[in-house]
Amino acid sequence: MRGKFITLEGGDGVGKSTQASLLEQRLRDLGEKIYLTREPGGNELCEQIRDLLKIFRKMDRICSLLLLFAARREHFIQTISPLLERGYFVICDRFYDSSLVYQGVLEGIPIESILKLKRLTLEDFEPDLTLVLDVKAESSAYRLKSRHLIQDEYDAMDIEKHDRIREGFRKIAETFSFRATLIDAEGTQEAVHSRILAVVEKKFAHLDLKCKGIQFKA
Amino acid sequence: MRGKFITLEGGDGVGKSTQASLLEQRLRDLGEKIYLTREPGGNELCEQIRDLLKIFRKMDRICSLLLLFAARREHFIQTISPLLERGYFVICDRFYDSSLVYQGVLEGIPIESILKLKRLTLEDFEPDLTLVLDVKAESSAYRLKSRHLIQDEYDAMDIEKHDRIREGFRKIAETFSFRATLIDAEGTQEAVHSRILAVVEKKFAHLDLKCKGIQFKA
Repeated sequence: MRGKFITLEGGDGVGKSTQASLLEQRLRDLGEKIYLTREPGGNELCEQIRDLLKIFRKMDRICSLLLLFAARREHFIQTISPLLERGYFVICDRFYDSSLVYQGVLEGIPIESILKLKRLTLEDFEPDLTLVLDVKAESSAYRLKSRHLIQDEYDAMDIEKHDRIREGFRKIAETFSFRATLIDAEGTQEAVHSRILAVVEKKFAHLDLKCKGIQFKA
Repeated sequence: MRGKFITLEGGDGVGKSTQASLLEQRLRDLGEKIYLTREPGGNELCEQIRDLLKIFRKMDRICSLLLLFAARREHFIQTISPLLERGYFVICDRFYDSSLVYQGVLEGIPIESILKLKRLTLEDFEPDLTLVLDVKAESSAYRLKSRHLIQDEYDAMDIEKHDRIREGFRKIAETFSFRATLIDAEGTQEAVHSRILAVVEKKFAHLDLKCKGIQFKA
């Protein structure tokens, strides 16, 4: 049976990687075949594209968008798609929704252009479930600061930017409601993890999961 | 006054770089501000993208198309467009027509997808003049062989492929007849150069070229 593709989305500092790891561990404990990955990432080519994006930070925004989608395509073709064919649960920290928000909402590239690029790159492929982690702009700014990431240009955004990003992701959850669910990501890691498990359980309840009959709650 | 953008197109071995250099020299002799460039090329970022395309030769065709357009965008924004603003004649060895033929006609990516990418990358920018160099498939194959490039995978195409590429570029000349002219590129370099000069002279005769009144013929 084909696997399932779960993406985690949201601004920096909302707790995506932590929650991705907790979900990975939980599904693994239940006996599922799991692969946890992140964007931009994947094979050697993806890593090299990622390096270009880091080294040439001031590059034109369209050039950067094309490089992001080139890496995404490679990641999809070489890693995500084959694993789904082999029945894996693939959990991905960020996917194309992040381009809609960062390159679209934030940098002003028309959403329709980004969606055209999405269709060229991924055709009609969509995540089976997108968890949109949502916290107040102040919370994500505070979390970033406490992670000492604030000196990093990419993360050193002011509250107003955090707010625009947050609104962008809330819009994603609304627009793609067939696959995306807004998760209240305030509170402890454990509390957020429980909310995520409840959504995953509901979404995949009809599947012949190995965890069938097992109490899914954290 | 805004400069003019001239592209040279055609398969491998039709003599594009030689003719680009001859045209560059001729226009320079006539006192024009000239910049000769090639694709994929430009600044350091473009060169690094070019390296990725060389190193990861077996990459997915859509990923490769996105990288080519990323380099093209950077080349356009950083090099071509500013020089045109400053009144330069910019001569470019290959431009987006090459993607229509190599990635479209040859590799089977839908032309409409490539044109969408073109619009995202270059908007409605078009060359002022495209010289499509046309030789028989046997001639380009022979020229490549005599250049000892035949061991290069990219150039080691059989006659049938040369023919498909040739037909692709002839179609370009037909489709974009408002800017593209088919040049018979059989014969000596000097003969081909003369044919190119005749086309350039006719195309830009109305301009206040510094060479106005000067016999343009080679």
